[in-house]
Amino acid sequence: MENHRSFCPLNLIVEVIGDKWSLLILRDMMFENKRNFRQLLQMEEHIASNILTDRINALEREGLLTKAADPDHKQKITYSLTEKSIDLMPMLIEAMKWSVKYEAVDREKYKPAVDLVSASPEFQQKVAQDLLEKHVAAQLSK
Amino acid sequence: MENHRSFCPLNLIVEVIGDKWSLLILRDMMFENKRNFRQLLQMEEHIASNILTDRINALEREGLLTKAADPDHKQKITYSLTEKSIDLMPMLIEAMKWSVKYEAVDREKYKPAVDLVSASPEFQQKVAQDLLEKHVAAQLSK
Repeated sequence: MENHRSFCPLNLIVEVIGDKWSLLILRDMMFENKRNFRQLLQMEEHIASNILTDRINALEREGLLTKAADPDHKQKITYSLTEKSIDLMPMLIEAMKWSVKYEAVDREKYKPAVDLVSASPEFQQKVAQDLLEKHVAAQLSK
Repeated sequence: MENHRSFCPLNLIVEVIGDKWSLLILRDMMFENKRNFRQLLQMEEHIASNILTDRINALEREGLLTKAADPDHKQKITYSLTEKSIDLMPMLIEAMKWSVKYEAVDREKYKPAVDLVSASPEFQQKVAQDLLEKHVAAQLSK
């Protein structure tokens, strides 16, 4: 059994994504369609490349991300989200909703995120469904 | 203006509570009715006292917690949640829901949390309303 601080549901998710970068990496994969290291390194918040490597490996270990080599260019690695990471969407939406209410969000610059927060549950589910098709179903069909 | 990494809604909430302890402190205040330093120091996950001090001060700066001295014992400080921190509840519930689905949660030991996750929205709102009355309204009426 892994060495957890406790088996409380809140603690366990904090152990997985409770750091300064993991959610931002998932955000860029979900909402900016970034699929490889080079693209993720361009993150607006300036992540260091050693930290990005470390976080990607941790996300892979936790089953939140999978890696696949391009058959023609083995050094070209593409990352995919998983059902487990796409299922974080309802929490991410509630987190962004809170932030829009209380923090100094730039609503113009991040209009798609602000709009997603106030969209219908049906639209939010459609976004998650599209990600499942693009990331998970596409992997399975290879 | 504060020195933020970006004004993205997700980044801003990560900056506020994206560490290993803040959410656990709020959890103990919300769900275990802990209201002072000594009680919070008993956290199951073994927080160090200097880190607890640091995190409580950060939560206060961010408006997620207020401190009040007992009129009769000035050294006895009681902490209260705020509307801003109680409004994290929908996100916490989605986080715990995800954890119950994917992580090694001890469902017996944390039955109240597991039950809250699958409770009706009305019950979840009642829990938040009760916290508002106990923490925020009680402060205002002093």
